Amino acid sequence: MSCHFRTTRRVEFCETDLAGIVHFANFYRYMEQAEHEFFRSLGLKIVGFLPDGTKFGWPRVATSCSFDAPARYEDVIEVRLTITRRTARSLTIAYEFFRDEIHLASGEMKTVFCIMSPDTGMKSADMPADYAEKLDRAAGL
Amino acid sequence: MSCHFRTTRRVEFCETDLAGIVHFANFYRYMEQAEHEFFRSLGLKIVGFLPDGTKFGWPRVATSCSFDAPARYEDVIEVRLTITRRTARSLTIAYEFFRDEIHLASGEMKTVFCIMSPDTGMKSADMPADYAEKLDRAAGL
Amino acid sequence: MSCHFRTTRRVEFCETDLAGIVHFANFYRYMEQAEHEFFRSLGLKIVGFLPDGTKFGWPRVATSCSFDAPARYEDVIEVRLTITRRTARSLTIAYEFFRDEIHLASGEMKTVFCIMSPDTGMKSADMPADYAEKLDRAAGL
Amino acid sequence: MSCHFRTTRRVEFCETDLAGIVHFANFYRYMEQAEHEFFRSLGLKIVGFLPDGTKFGWPRVATSCSFDAPARYEDVIEVRLTITRRTARSLTIAYEFFRDEIHLASGEMKTVFCIMSPDTGMKSADMPADYAEKLDRAAGL
Repeated sequence: MSCHFRTTRRVEFCETDLAGIVHFANFYRYMEQAEHEFFRSLGLKIVGFLPDGTKFGWPRVATSCSFDAPARYEDVIEVRLTITRRTARSLTIAYEFFRDEIHLASGEMKTVFCIMSPDTGMKSADMPADYAEKLDRAAGL
Repeated sequence: MSCHFRTTRRVEFCETDLAGIVHFANFYRYMEQAEHEFFRSLGLKIVGFLPDGTKFGWPRVATSCSFDAPARYEDVIEVRLTITRRTARSLTIAYEFFRDEIHLASGEMKTVFCIMSPDTGMKSADMPADYAEKLDRAAGL
Repeated sequence: MSCHFRTTRRVEFCETDLAGIVHFANFYRYMEQAEHEFFRSLGLKIVGFLPDGTKFGWPRVATSCSFDAPARYEDVIEVRLTITRRTARSLTIAYEFFRDEIHLASGEMKTVFCIMSPDTGMKSADMPADYAEKLDRAAGL
Repeated sequence: MSCHFRTTRRVEFCETDLAGIVHFANFYRYMEQAEHEFFRSLGLKIVGFLPDGTKFGWPRVATSCSFDAPARYEDVIEVRLTITRRTARSLTIAYEFFRDEIHLASGEMKTVFCIMSPDTGMKSADMPADYAEKLDRAAGL
């Protein structure tokens, strides 16, 4: 399967639970870590400041994850990341998790570019042109 | 809105992130904690042993959460839980999160009753009769 | 044993690890949660703003925890909190953990009152008079 | 400074709190991850089974960490690990945390080799000869 970025991580002891497997909520952290690594690889930021000093971020709008097989302590998990949709303000990324060739889980997260101000709180906004461009290039568009 | 169980919890400091809000992955922990409290209220177990000594559990099959508004340190969050589907082997529960009357998030988790053995690993199975009965009664069926 | 504040919490599923017991690092979160509950009971804040708008907080300086017996899923743990030292700028609190009358762990955390500014970062400072007064009164001084 | 093992890790977003810095309890996870990486580098196990099928582990007895400077999102932290004491049943390791040449924190954790049985629970025991030997060799003894 083609994907736009891939990375691996090793399951830590503290990520398991008494059932002896990775606690499911950690898969959301794994998605986020892969996403942030992907952003870093493109020179993009998850939180930062626009040239005029406005603070920005990418809060979550919708997240999901389905599970096929458990992951265990010390497993090396591969995360394959694919941009499934980019609009002016939002980014949707799908994630596939594998251990060797065993499929563990599939997830998706939609985030929205937002500017933050002490007065108005978070407000969605068009992402900067270089973000749109680099994300589209990574997606092969 | 009607629901089958409700509980509250206060946001802890360590559940926030540098954006100053609850890290989204913690909403999955909040769902799980509400689910477990619901099970306890019915005298049901999330992990345990059948009369013949077989170990059982309820691993996650599919999970999702969408976000409308952020939660912050010390917020008291109400979680409203509704059984949306019960089959012989699975249970699907929807969760609504509120702070006062502000809707924060909506989630859903599908779990499957499984028996665990060192030989065969996890295998789905029909849930015990008293589980089916108590869950249906809680759902008003 | 006399103490200055006590609270209880139930062990959550996600706080256990594959050894079937509470992961030790969570005891530090339990200490923090007891501490914050104690502060709330006194009307004091862990993070906030002084009357002149300066931001303040209580970063950790030194923390420790020793373990006598494990805690498990669904255990109800009692945390007993005792102020062991208060100086103009610092607060040291000892924590004792029990399940029923079984002693589980002993911890201690020293925190320092700090003001934060974008320019100078965190800098220790004398705590406000009402903090010193309320903490001393809680300690029976 | 000399040490017996060193590793690095990058601070993840979900490890920060609303103060904008790494939540202190995560330093205990960082220590554990360095320790486990160290064990792996020696071919030793944190949890496993003796030749006769007895389960073993290394529960924590005493842990501590002091903090000099905060760590932030995306920081690359170096962890330097030094064995400070090994007895027949216990292992004490000191940890120093650095970002570039800035000292962030110092910690220490004492663990005890234990065998676990459903009947008697955890019981300390002499560590296997190859554990003692490999740990001493790593410590330059």
